[in-house]
Amino acid sequence: MLCRVGVLVSGRGTNLQSIIDKSISGEIDAEVVVVISDNPKAQALNRARKVGIKALYLDPATEKPILVGGAEDKYLQVLKENQVDLVCLAGFMRVLKEKFISEYKWRIMNIHPALLPSFKGLHAQRQALNSGERFSGATVHFVTEDVDGGPIILQAVVPIYQDDTEESLSQRILKEEHRIYPECINLLAKGKIQIKDNKVIIGEING
Amino acid sequence: MLCRVGVLVSGRGTNLQSIIDKSISGEIDAEVVVVISDNPKAQALNRARKVGIKALYLDPATEKPILVGGAEDKYLQVLKENQVDLVCLAGFMRVLKEKFISEYKWRIMNIHPALLPSFKGLHAQRQALNSGERFSGATVHFVTEDVDGGPIILQAVVPIYQDDTEESLSQRILKEEHRIYPECINLLAKGKIQIKDNKVIIGEING
Repeated sequence: MLCRVGVLVSGRGTNLQSIIDKSISGEIDAEVVVVISDNPKAQALNRARKVGIKALYLDPATEKPILVGGAEDKYLQVLKENQVDLVCLAGFMRVLKEKFISEYKWRIMNIHPALLPSFKGLHAQRQALNSGERFSGATVHFVTEDVDGGPIILQAVVPIYQDDTEESLSQRILKEEHRIYPECINLLAKGKIQIKDNKVIIGEING
Repeated sequence: MLCRVGVLVSGRGTNLQSIIDKSISGEIDAEVVVVISDNPKAQALNRARKVGIKALYLDPATEKPILVGGAEDKYLQVLKENQVDLVCLAGFMRVLKEKFISEYKWRIMNIHPALLPSFKGLHAQRQALNSGERFSGATVHFVTEDVDGGPIILQAVVPIYQDDTEESLSQRILKEEHRIYPECINLLAKGKIQIKDNKVIIGEING
């Protein structure tokens, strides 16, 4: 049975696109059943509608970068109505709080454009450039109340070149994001992810 | 002209060995002219003596993991007597302080078994294993008063496997250490390292 994925997104939605593409092509055992944005102008909403996926703007009702109160309830309601198994944050610019996280315990993933635990928070690519590091990358992790600090599922590494700009590095990382995010969804869909001592173990659960 | 390298070391000296090997073979434009240890039983001293390199134990005169006072002066004196151009820390278990660092400004390198700025300090491999990260590596950096925080010269990445132990991960990282440390020495020896805005730029200085 396909894993029913709900995607929360605030912007362009290139990660959403890669998840949609690989679910349509059958590369991953998942189906995006609903896309929700806190931004009525998010390009991501159009990407979903274009292929017939339900896409909604839900007013977050606060300027703060969090999802709380009545808005949080609305988001949860829509996810439940659509029988979502897995919530994927794909450039969703709000921090989820305890209630939301406990409703979907170990069923919320996020992608971050750096090799966590390095460079948490905003502008991770700029942070990496400014650090003088020779490598950066992308991390898919489970969402916990520790922002950008939940158990890591997969990572990918990219080199940082001396002439890199934030844009060129972001593009290089994005390519890896588009590869590993669907892969993580597929691992979960196939029942190959276990959490043990707050760490992710990948493998055959019944193997 | 060969870059005259002084190595400070507390233990086995496998990085020292790789530097010695590549200087003897002519792979790098450097010569290890003196090895100093704060540990009279360091295997590294024997490695140096075996190939005719001057190797001294110098009493650090404190139990604290630092090099200060009269001991610091003695270390500096020996390095100067031997006309050392570059000081390489290779598993030297003491923090250098302001006086030493300013005497060899941008002429002290260190190697650390992690992808800095992640996992500074002791037991970096264990820290990486416990974090659940999927990659770690090695970093060669200039030594500043910011411990494990100086400008990065080169890094290398290795995967972390699920069945890794501290020992197996350390071995994998060590292999990369032995590769990149001599490479960094060679870059400096060839005048290819610039520091700009506290970051290392590698390339032809007169190019």
